[in-house]
Amino acid sequence: MRAAILAVGSELLGSDRVDTNSLALAETLAGFGIDVACKMVVGDEPDVIAAAVERLMSSCGLLLITGGLGPTQDDLTREAIAAVLGRPLERSDEILDELRRRFASFGIDMPSVNEKQADVIRGAEVLGNRRGTAPGMRIDHKGCTLFLFPGVPTELEGLVESFLVPWLAANTSGEGVETRVLKVACIPESVLEQRLGPFYDEWGNDGVSLLPSLGEVSLRLTTSGKRSERQTWLQPRQQEIRKLLGQRVFAESADVTLEEATGRALAAARLSVATAESCTGGLVGERLTRIPGSSRYFRGSVVSYANELKQELLQVSPQLLREYGAVSKEVAVAMAMGACRLLASDVAVAVTGVAGPDGGTAAKPVGTVHLAVTGGSLPEAMHRRLRLPGSRERVRWVSSQWALDMLRRVAFEITGSMAPDGCGRENSV
Amino acid sequence: MRAAILAVGSELLGSDRVDTNSLALAETLAGFGIDVACKMVVGDEPDVIAAAVERLMSSCGLLLITGGLGPTQDDLTREAIAAVLGRPLERSDEILDELRRRFASFGIDMPSVNEKQADVIRGAEVLGNRRGTAPGMRIDHKGCTLFLFPGVPTELEGLVESFLVPWLAANTSGEGVETRVLKVACIPESVLEQRLGPFYDEWGNDGVSLLPSLGEVSLRLTTSGKRSERQTWLQPRQQEIRKLLGQRVFAESADVTLEEATGRALAAARLSVATAESCTGGLVGERLTRIPGSSRYFRGSVVSYANELKQELLQVSPQLLREYGAVSKEVAVAMAMGACRLLASDVAVAVTGVAGPDGGTAAKPVGTVHLAVTGGSLPEAMHRRLRLPGSRERVRWVSSQWALDMLRRVAFEITGSMAPDGCGRENSV
Repeated sequence: MRAAILAVGSELLGSDRVDTNSLALAETLAGFGIDVACKMVVGDEPDVIAAAVERLMSSCGLLLITGGLGPTQDDLTREAIAAVLGRPLERSDEILDELRRRFASFGIDMPSVNEKQADVIRGAEVLGNRRGTAPGMRIDHKGCTLFLFPGVPTELEGLVESFLVPWLAANTSGEGVETRVLKVACIPESVLEQRLGPFYDEWGNDGVSLLPSLGEVSLRLTTSGKRSERQTWLQPRQQEIRKLLGQRVFAESADVTLEEATGRALAAARLSVATAESCTGGLVGERLTRIPGSSRYFRGSVVSYANELKQELLQVSPQLLREYGAVSKEVAVAMAMGACRLLASDVAVAVTGVAGPDGGTAAKPVGTVHLAVTGGSLPEAMHRRLRLPGSRERVRWVSSQWALDMLRRVAFEITGSMAPDGCGRENSV
Repeated sequence: MRAAILAVGSELLGSDRVDTNSLALAETLAGFGIDVACKMVVGDEPDVIAAAVERLMSSCGLLLITGGLGPTQDDLTREAIAAVLGRPLERSDEILDELRRRFASFGIDMPSVNEKQADVIRGAEVLGNRRGTAPGMRIDHKGCTLFLFPGVPTELEGLVESFLVPWLAANTSGEGVETRVLKVACIPESVLEQRLGPFYDEWGNDGVSLLPSLGEVSLRLTTSGKRSERQTWLQPRQQEIRKLLGQRVFAESADVTLEEATGRALAAARLSVATAESCTGGLVGERLTRIPGSSRYFRGSVVSYANELKQELLQVSPQLLREYGAVSKEVAVAMAMGACRLLASDVAVAVTGVAGPDGGTAAKPVGTVHLAVTGGSLPEAMHRRLRLPGSRERVRWVSSQWALDMLRRVAFEITGSMAPDGCGRENSV
């Protein structure tokens, strides 16, 4: 079975909004082994909607339509599809009552414009929408199944779970595609490939892909088949990769961010943390505090953008600054130690670097960044020197990735649960 | 003339990427008064591409196609379109030479797979691509004009500027749509509407729209017509709005961010700035330092997430903390004063609040935020109390909007260029 997705809405044809509902729909379909052959967006024009539906029905067995089921004059999907299928619209008393009850529960009379939301295309199954006023519909017509969904994401999501997923389960073999994601940070793709050598030797690279983004790589394992076959394929591969990469894997879900993983590690290790930041301008602390409850481990930050603040606040000695410069291992370590003292934290991370676009020199070009983590329980400071390519935004972001990942790994090291790969402390990259 | 946009690429049919090239194309078309009737996405399958092109050509006079012009086996747009138009592909020696030169300039021999990028559909105008190896094409066929563009955004952008815009200028009346954007921060939409009363009285509200986003509103003036007509319409309206809103307008371009406007104001006023942050976790400093050259005015930040750091670092008196609580006007003002002293800045902004989801009380529910700006040249502290709705992320972001906008307005006030609307110092909202 091949599917098509049609989004209706003139606002999706302009220069500031794209249809994103199709992403979740494509993922749901993939879970049942159904490919999307085509996506289409049209405005709120009955003729254009009708022509699009006609064409998509002729080439696909399943057509998912979103948008245009609202109460206003430019919500015309219902009418356009009734016309193209040659079926009348019939007003449902049941839906009308339900709509009136809904409005009454908010203490208001239903506006008369909402009445048309009770119109059902003859022969359609009504998909009750508990999150909004627009019911969906399912229609079987000449070998194609059409689903009409509201365009509001939360309403769509509810109807997909309640109606599309069960329909797919009943009407497909149950064979689908499943993906597991393991995320690693701050390791070059080539080094990662090398680490995975033994895995590739044993399992091959079919269904394995590396998706690099800024300062992290998502390792994706993808397979298809029935649910039990998928588990049999995925389970041992995922375990083997975790064994090879150890604590380098910071998350086993696409949704978990690095700041979340770092927060969990710090909380588990009962370590309080502080940051001393220069080129990142506060980004590391800002990311740590994105996580609700971060006050359990986050003490605070000092952003010493002006050089003399590194001396005055963080007690970096003027001699170090003169001798090595603000962007150096020595100053990074001193900043981290200063932050530990000043902010009374168990550990601290410091970032100092040249984010650009100006300020680079031959010896320390734009993208040079030094990071250090220190703390009472650490036998010695952990240090990294980076040479990062790209824009100011990119240099700052990747620096914050390293800062978070170093903290995360220090937390594991201190609690003694560091992975056996011994990659806890290296002196530069 | 009506246009359609077709994006080719199987990666755009999955669950993690949408076609965004169409946004810039829609904007360019709007500038020449052309509506997009339909957008479509298909995978790298010749039959599906051909069917889509055939259908879109039948309903539109202009068809813009992106993607599938690369050198690999799944780049099939060229072949599919040649087939559907019934025209042969002809290899161009000129393009081939150009491609070889391009590779030679990087010191490598051209891989043979790239040869097919020299294939031109008979009768097409070749659109030379200086940013990549895939030339574009323009083809007039049975009343429809097709543009084939590469999918790489920078390459597409270059070809749009060099070829599509001149073609549109020559083939349309020059009548188009133009939008001016004025951005204001931290003013509720209803208050803004009220301020604009005299404008609406004089000019009406045709072509005026308010687009609110988190902690700011974009005021859009949109008109259509020939270029000179558009100017005649836009100019006086834009001036009148600026007169009414004064320094409340922080930018007259959609691209300028609030942190950029604040940075410019601080630099113009020759003021150095520091931040003292609690619930925002460093976000205000992070946003200030997104701007290259921010070291001219940004001194640094203290993020005092732990309460005792407010005392120890920022010298907020324990009595104030006991009496008023950490989230209070008194503590916000004391934090700002402490930051001015500690970080030796001319002005400082402080943010203290309850970002949630936990930590709220009846008196200070989640979303309660106090902000203060102090500084030597300010006659008194500026203070705001906010009750912000929404998620932790939202509360933090909107708080940072207020912090930046308060700094921006203080900079204007100190340089004496504050607007005559007297909205510089108000005690709460």
